[in-house]
Amino acid sequence: MAAKSTSKTPRRTNQSLSHLLRLPAGRVDLSRLDTAATHGYPGKGKDDAAALTAALAPQISDLQERLFANGRAAPDTAKRVLVLLQGMDTSGKGGVIRHAMGMVDPQGIQLTSFKAPTVEERQHHYLWRIEKALPSPGMIGIFDRSQYEDVLVVRVEQLVPVSEWSKRYDEINALEKQITDEGTTVIKCFLNVSFEEQKARLAARLASPDKYWKYNPKDIDARAKWPAYQQAYADALERCNTDYAPWFVIPADRKWYRNWAVAQLLREHLVGMDLGWPEATFDVAAEKARVAKA
Amino acid sequence: MAAKSTSKTPRRTNQSLSHLLRLPAGRVDLSRLDTAATHGYPGKGKDDAAALTAALAPQISDLQERLFANGRAAPDTAKRVLVLLQGMDTSGKGGVIRHAMGMVDPQGIQLTSFKAPTVEERQHHYLWRIEKALPSPGMIGIFDRSQYEDVLVVRVEQLVPVSEWSKRYDEINALEKQITDEGTTVIKCFLNVSFEEQKARLAARLASPDKYWKYNPKDIDARAKWPAYQQAYADALERCNTDYAPWFVIPADRKWYRNWAVAQLLREHLVGMDLGWPEATFDVAAEKARVAKA
Repeated sequence: MAAKSTSKTPRRTNQSLSHLLRLPAGRVDLSRLDTAATHGYPGKGKDDAAALTAALAPQISDLQERLFANGRAAPDTAKRVLVLLQGMDTSGKGGVIRHAMGMVDPQGIQLTSFKAPTVEERQHHYLWRIEKALPSPGMIGIFDRSQYEDVLVVRVEQLVPVSEWSKRYDEINALEKQITDEGTTVIKCFLNVSFEEQKARLAARLASPDKYWKYNPKDIDARAKWPAYQQAYADALERCNTDYAPWFVIPADRKWYRNWAVAQLLREHLVGMDLGWPEATFDVAAEKARVAKA
Repeated sequence: MAAKSTSKTPRRTNQSLSHLLRLPAGRVDLSRLDTAATHGYPGKGKDDAAALTAALAPQISDLQERLFANGRAAPDTAKRVLVLLQGMDTSGKGGVIRHAMGMVDPQGIQLTSFKAPTVEERQHHYLWRIEKALPSPGMIGIFDRSQYEDVLVVRVEQLVPVSEWSKRYDEINALEKQITDEGTTVIKCFLNVSFEEQKARLAARLASPDKYWKYNPKDIDARAKWPAYQQAYADALERCNTDYAPWFVIPADRKWYRNWAVAQLLREHLVGMDLGWPEATFDVAAEKARVAKA
C-alpha cells in the first residue's frame, strides 16, 4: 500500500508484455495469431500462474491507490484508466474481471457491462451510453464489451445498414483520441479464443450443473456465424489500432495465461503513468497542531 | 468456485461471529462496548490475520457465484445481500471495502458511497437515493455510509428540525422490513472506533505524504462533537436494531480484526442463505447435441 516499491519508474523495454502483445499496425489476419501462445509469461505454466498473477497485486494496489488519491485531491488534473475487454463468447471477459481486475480495490473501479441496448439507449447515439460510462478522475473503468459491439454484432446481425456502421470506425477513433487527450490511458484487450476452444468451453458449461447459468442457447447461433465475426473483428482491430489507443491481442485459449496477461498489462500501464502522491491541500503543520489538541 | 465445499449448510451455533457481534436488544450504551475486542477471532493476532482473512475468500467466492448465478437465471426470485457500513471518520469503512469486500468478484458488487446530498438528491425524500442504490437480484450491495446519516450528521449538525429526523427511525425500519421481506439479507455493521484511536489515525494521516489525501480538516470539526455523535449513534443503533435487520457492532480499533470480522460476517450470512445453483432454463440434452454439431 505504501510508496516504496514503485518509487522509481522501471525502464520500459522491448521485453514488456505491452510490446509483445501490441497488435502491429497494418493488415490484420486473425488466422495468423496464435490463440494458445504464452508470450512473455515468466513462469513454467498453469501450475505457477495463480501465484504469479497474485504477485502482481501489491504493485497494482499501490499504483491504483496513487491514481485514486489524485482523483480525490486533484480531480481536475487526475488521470484515469480504461480497460476495455472484447472477445467472442467464452473468451473469458468475465474470468478476467473476476481474477485479474478483482485484485483491485472495488472503490477504485467503475465496471460497466454493455448488453443489447435498452429502449432508452436506442433513443440515443450509439456512443451516448459509452460516454456516460467513462471513468471518473482517479478511477479504473472496465468495459465488458464496448463501443466495438456497434461494429461487430451490429454488423454481423445486420442491425444497421453498411453505410451506418462503416462510418463508426472513425467515430470511435475520434472518441478515443478525445479521452486519451483528456488523460485517460486506454487498454484495449481482444481476448482471442479459437473456434475449437470455444466448443470445448460451451460443452463444459453443459457438463456441470454449476455452469448451466453461464450457457445461453443463443451462443450457438453466434458460433454459426464465426467467420463473419472474425472478419468484423479483424476490421475493427485494423481500423482502430491507433498510437493513442492501440489494441492488445491476448491469446485466450489458456485461461491462466489470459488472466496473468491482463493483470500484467494493467501493471505495466500504471507504472508508465508515473503516478505520484498528491500534494496536501491544507497546511500540514497547522493541522498537526489541531490534531494534537483535539 | 465449485459446489463441493458448501453443499451442506453448516449448523449455526451460538459460537458464530454473527451471534457474538449482534447488538443485544434494548438500551445501547456505547461506552460499555470494547472497541479493541477481538471476539471470536480464531487466530493469535495481527500476524495471522491477513492469512485467516484470505482463507475465507474461496468460500465467499463460491457462495457469491451461486448468488450471482441465481440473479442471472431467475431474477424474479433471486436473493440479494446488502452490507451497510457506518462509523466515525477513520473507523475504516474504506479499509473494510478494500480488504474484505475486495475479495468478492467485482461483477457481483454494487458499491455506493453516500456523500453529502447533491442538489438533485436534496430535491427528493432522503430515502430516494437509498432506494435507487439497493442491490439488484443476485448482487451484493455495499453502502459506504447510508440512510443512517440522516439521523446522524443531520441530527448533530442540526440540518433538519428534531420533529423531522425523529420520525426517521421508524421510516428506516419500514424500508428495511420491506427489503428483507423482498429477499435481501441486510448486514448492518457499525465500525466502533475509540476517541483515542481516532486521534492516532488522524495523526498518522498527517505523518506521511502518502496519506495526506485521506485527511480532511473537517474531520477535526466532527471530532469536536464526538459526544453528540456517540449519542446519535446510540439512538440509531437502539431504535433500528430489529430482528429482520439487526446491527452488528464491530470493534474497530484493530484494523486486522475489523477486516477479518466483516469478511467472516459476510461468509456466515451467505452460508445461512442456503444458496443452490439455479436450474437450467433450457433443455440440456438438446443443447449438448447442438454443441456437438456446432
